Amino acid sequence: MERLHIFSGKKVMITGGMGFIGSNLAHQLIGLKARVLIIDSLSPLYGGNFFNIKGIEDKCKIFINNVSNQILINNLVKGQDFIFNLVGQRSHIDSMNNPLLDLETNCHSHLVLLEACKRYNPGVKIVFAGTRTQYGSPVYLPVDEKHPMNPLDISGINKMAAEAYHLLYYRNYGIKTTSLRLTNVYGPRHQMKHSRQGFLNWFIRLAMDDEKIRIFGDGRQLRDFIHVEDVVRAFLMVAVNKKTDGQVFNLGTDNPVSIIYAAKLIVELAGSGKIKRVPFPEKNKKIEVGDYYSDFTKAKEIVGWRPDVSFRDGLKMTVDYYRKNKRHYWK
Amino acid sequence: MERLHIFSGKKVMITGGMGFIGSNLAHQLIGLKARVLIIDSLSPLYGGNFFNIKGIEDKCKIFINNVSNQILINNLVKGQDFIFNLVGQRSHIDSMNNPLLDLETNCHSHLVLLEACKRYNPGVKIVFAGTRTQYGSPVYLPVDEKHPMNPLDISGINKMAAEAYHLLYYRNYGIKTTSLRLTNVYGPRHQMKHSRQGFLNWFIRLAMDDEKIRIFGDGRQLRDFIHVEDVVRAFLMVAVNKKTDGQVFNLGTDNPVSIIYAAKLIVELAGSGKIKRVPFPEKNKKIEVGDYYSDFTKAKEIVGWRPDVSFRDGLKMTVDYYRKNKRHYWK
Repeated sequence: MERLHIFSGKKVMITGGMGFIGSNLAHQLIGLKARVLIIDSLSPLYGGNFFNIKGIEDKCKIFINNVSNQILINNLVKGQDFIFNLVGQRSHIDSMNNPLLDLETNCHSHLVLLEACKRYNPGVKIVFAGTRTQYGSPVYLPVDEKHPMNPLDISGINKMAAEAYHLLYYRNYGIKTTSLRLTNVYGPRHQMKHSRQGFLNWFIRLAMDDEKIRIFGDGRQLRDFIHVEDVVRAFLMVAVNKKTDGQVFNLGTDNPVSIIYAAKLIVELAGSGKIKRVPFPEKNKKIEVGDYYSDFTKAKEIVGWRPDVSFRDGLKMTVDYYRKNKRHYWK
Repeated sequence: MERLHIFSGKKVMITGGMGFIGSNLAHQLIGLKARVLIIDSLSPLYGGNFFNIKGIEDKCKIFINNVSNQILINNLVKGQDFIFNLVGQRSHIDSMNNPLLDLETNCHSHLVLLEACKRYNPGVKIVFAGTRTQYGSPVYLPVDEKHPMNPLDISGINKMAAEAYHLLYYRNYGIKTTSLRLTNVYGPRHQMKHSRQGFLNWFIRLAMDDEKIRIFGDGRQLRDFIHVEDVVRAFLMVAVNKKTDGQVFNLGTDNPVSIIYAAKLIVELAGSGKIKRVPFPEKNKKIEVGDYYSDFTKAKEIVGWRPDVSFRDGLKMTVDYYRKNKRHYWK
C-alpha cells in the first residue's frame, strides 16, 4: 500500500464517480491527496447519488454529464494522470429491456473516452471496470482470465466489447489500459432502491426493513462476494503498477459462500428479516449460472492484491453504514 | 439446392442489399421468385451501388435508409419470412479512424433490427454476416468455430458483439438466427474505388488498369478466398435449414492459396498489370495475421455446403464482369 502515496497531487478522473465503486474510490483518493475530477450522469437508472460524495464534494471537481458527450470529454481528459473508468450499466434486466441505452452507456461512452485520450492524452493510465458476466456460465471453476467469454445478456456482451476496445487502444496506440473483471461487489454507497444491480445489497435492505428475502431453489450456489474496500484497493494498486498495462485481472475471494449462507448472515447481523425459499422462476433459469467463483492468482502474483475484509466484517460495516444513512438511499 | 424452391413467393429482406454480397443475394432470390425488399444506406463509405441491382430493380422494394432508423425498421420487418442481415462496415482502417460510426453500423443497427423482430416478427429467420476478423490472429490452423475470439480492430470487436446479440436473441426469445463467419470474399459487384474493404478485388482493378500490385514481404501468407456465388449459396442453404438456428458456421475453401499466387493469377487473367514486392510497412505489421484459413467442416456436415467455384474460374468471371461494367465501378 505504501506505493499509493504516488497519488498525492496527481490528477485523477473518475467516470461514474458518484456511483457505488466510483464514489468509494473518490473518498480514498481524496484521502491520498489526489486532485479528483468526477463525471457522472446521475441518471436515475444507475447508481449515482450526490450523497455518496458527502464530505468530499468541495474537494472534487464535479461534472454532471454523460461520458458520451464528446466535446466535454475531449476537454476533461487533458492533463489527467489516471482515469478510473467506472461508467457503466450493470443491470441484466435493464440491458435486456433497453439494449440501445445499454449500448450507449457500455460501448459508446468508452469509445468516446478512449478516442479523447488517443488525441489529447495518450500518456494517461486507465483502469476499466469489467465484469464476470463477460464469461457467462462457467465451463470450469474457479474461472481464470483464460476462460472463454460467452456472455448471457446484452450488458455482458457490451462490457466484453468495451474491454476489448481498452486492450486494443493499448496494443495500437500505447494507451496504458487495464481491466479488472469484478464479481459480486457489495458494501456502502451501493444504490438501495431496487434489486436490478446485484442482489446482496438488496438482501441487506430487505433484512433491515424486516421483509422476506426470497431464495430461489435451495440457495446453495456459491458466489465470491467482495467488499468494495477491497475492490477500491485493487483499482489503486493496479493503476500504479506498470506490469498491468494492457492486462486483464480477475478479482475474487478465497472463500466463496452460498447464497443461503449470505442471506442468513445478513439476517443475523441486521437483527431482522426472514428467509423464504421459493421455486426457481422460469425466466431466471435462463440466466442462472450456478456456482461462480474466480481464480485471482494473476492479481495476487502480479499486483500483490488479495482481499482483506472478511465477509462478516464487510456485511457488518455495510449494515452499519445504511443504518446511519438510510434516508439517503431508501427512497 | 433443390430445397431453395422454398423461397418462391416468400418475403425476404436484405439489409445492405445494394452492397457486394447483398446484391448478389438479391439477384439469386429474384431468380428463385422471392419477394425481395432491400434496405441500403448507399453511404459513399460502404459498398452500396445502384448498378449492383441493375435488371432486378423493378422487381424489388427498395428503401434508401439506415438500418439504425428504428421506426422504419419496425415497419419493414413485419411479415418477412427471411432477413439476410448484411448491413455492416468491414474496413479495418475506417473502423479505426471512425470507431463511433463503426459502432453505429456494426452494433446499433443490429440491435435495432433484432429488437424490431422481437416485437413485430419473432418467427422470422435471420442470417447474419459475421467475419473471420472476429478471431484475430489464429492460434491454430485451420481455424474452426471454437477458436477463441481476439479481434484486432474496432470492426472485428463490434462484429463479435453483433454476432453475440444474434445468438442471444435466439436463446432468450427464440428468434431463429444464424451467423456465417466469412473469410476473404471476392467476385462481381464488389466496390472497386478503394482498397479498404479487402485486397483481392483491389488487385483485380490494379491489374486491369495495368498498374503495379504491391506485395508486402514475400506474399506467401495463405488465405482462403471464396467466390461470392459460393457465399450466396451458403446464405440460402443456411436460411432454409432448421438445424442452423442459433448456430455459427465458418465458410472456407479446401485450397488456401498464397497472396503472391493470387496476384500472379490475376495478372495472367487480366492480361495486364505488374507485381512489385515491397518491405512490410510498420503500421501493417500490427494487423497482419500471417496464414489464415478456415475449417468449414461444420457447414459441410450440417448444411451440406461446400464451395464449387474454383479460384481460377472465379477470378475469370470477376475480370469479365468488370471488363463489361467498368464504368459503373471505377469512378
